[in-house]
Amino acid sequence: MRVIEKISEAGALAQRIREAGKTIGLVPTMGDLHQGHLSLIRQARKDCQQVFISIFVNPTQFGPSEDYNSYPRDLQRDKRLAEKEGVDIIFAPSPGEMYPEGYRTFVEVEKLSEPLCGGSRPGHFRGVVTIVTKLFNIIRPHIAYFGQKDAQQAIIIKRMAHDLNMDIEIKVLPIVRERDGLALSSRNQYLNEAERRAAPILYKSLQEAKRMIETEERRSRNIIHRMEEMIKREKLAKMDYVAIVDGETLEERERAEGKVLFALAVWIGRTRLIDNLALELD
Amino acid sequence: MRVIEKISEAGALAQRIREAGKTIGLVPTMGDLHQGHLSLIRQARKDCQQVFISIFVNPTQFGPSEDYNSYPRDLQRDKRLAEKEGVDIIFAPSPGEMYPEGYRTFVEVEKLSEPLCGGSRPGHFRGVVTIVTKLFNIIRPHIAYFGQKDAQQAIIIKRMAHDLNMDIEIKVLPIVRERDGLALSSRNQYLNEAERRAAPILYKSLQEAKRMIETEERRSRNIIHRMEEMIKREKLAKMDYVAIVDGETLEERERAEGKVLFALAVWIGRTRLIDNLALELD
Repeated sequence: MRVIEKISEAGALAQRIREAGKTIGLVPTMGDLHQGHLSLIRQARKDCQQVFISIFVNPTQFGPSEDYNSYPRDLQRDKRLAEKEGVDIIFAPSPGEMYPEGYRTFVEVEKLSEPLCGGSRPGHFRGVVTIVTKLFNIIRPHIAYFGQKDAQQAIIIKRMAHDLNMDIEIKVLPIVRERDGLALSSRNQYLNEAERRAAPILYKSLQEAKRMIETEERRSRNIIHRMEEMIKREKLAKMDYVAIVDGETLEERERAEGKVLFALAVWIGRTRLIDNLALELD
Repeated sequence: MRVIEKISEAGALAQRIREAGKTIGLVPTMGDLHQGHLSLIRQARKDCQQVFISIFVNPTQFGPSEDYNSYPRDLQRDKRLAEKEGVDIIFAPSPGEMYPEGYRTFVEVEKLSEPLCGGSRPGHFRGVVTIVTKLFNIIRPHIAYFGQKDAQQAIIIKRMAHDLNMDIEIKVLPIVRERDGLALSSRNQYLNEAERRAAPILYKSLQEAKRMIETEERRSRNIIHRMEEMIKREKLAKMDYVAIVDGETLEERERAEGKVLFALAVWIGRTRLIDNLALELD
């Protein structure tokens, strides 16, 4: 396994691989690898002849009061995990390598970046889409892998790749959860013991929504109300948003029908967690 | 020479060419080819084994009150001219092909898009950079060619290609002028006879600026003042802007020193014309 820090080196290596007729899979990450990332790497390993992962805590997707500085970083641990999964190349550039002095260019996906997490984190998706565009241009993978945990991100990246005519397949893989339903996230480690016990409230409220759908309750207002009630009863939790939206346009839906996304963000103490459930209903 | 309207077809053909180890040159145009475009095509013909030109009047770079509908279009004439210059492929997509229903993604270059033409034409460079990104992704040329006439555009596109880690060389070729100095532009044909006689005022004022530099006048205020005076004396002309800026950052310069760009936009009747002079001074 090679670890590369320079854009020029990663780009040249990827080009040699492509010219040798081999397929490239890319798993973009911010490091601190967990089973969610590993599920993406395993799929890439199955699909592609060469597997790149990128490890880069991307400053442009963090707001000024967010956790850029405290975001967990442990490259040595990440290397061990990646090597074990058969990753071929880790691309781990510095912030200065990706955003040198005089950097000016940003990629934006209109409308899709505004609701849900876009409302709570202005500029977040602009940063995400920009770094993903750069990584795609450097590595030029045949397939790139993202987790369904960040459902809005996955929809936006698919839209961007399609709109900008990138010849890259985007694969989105299911959420990996703890036994009590908590979706895996690097931010889970910010939680203290009591908060950790409270955190499955996101999953539980999604399960409640699913149960309501199964009893033929389709009115979004009623489902959201019930989810909000559950979250309010959890003392360590504070709701950011709960929404039922179209699974492609992310526009609010009055009724849960067709391709819908149930999405929520909840503060557990000082940690903001997200979760979602994508359904195809009649 | 082939004329291709579909993105998928152009992309597949370009890929076959690249995989055959041949170099690709791309000249992006809005059609209505003139000697300025032909100078780019001739350079591409010299440099590259396969020459693509794109012909697309890009709606996203026109403001709501601008000349998108009246912009000159004559594909038959363009085909004859391109064929004569040895162009291999014309890519001439429809607006619906480039911006299908649900299109949402835009590329922006901050700061560099704000002054000069960016001030008079809000959103213009966002449209330019977005369409160029798309064309680059579809054709993936080794070298792309732009005219120095659109100096700010060339600087912005270089910045974008560099920032987004595109592996494409950007070549910028000199302004081609009429015998009286008027820079070639598709918009020159909007001018009536009297306006056409007035139009070289842009070039003349740049020549006056150059003359002042040669007599050791370096204060931008004084040079700009003289240029403005000249333009005011031309009855059919109305100044949009006259500026002396840094040739890389486009920031205003108090003195004309180092790498500077003298740039101006002037309305001649109802036609907005631009011109510039790039100098490397002591």
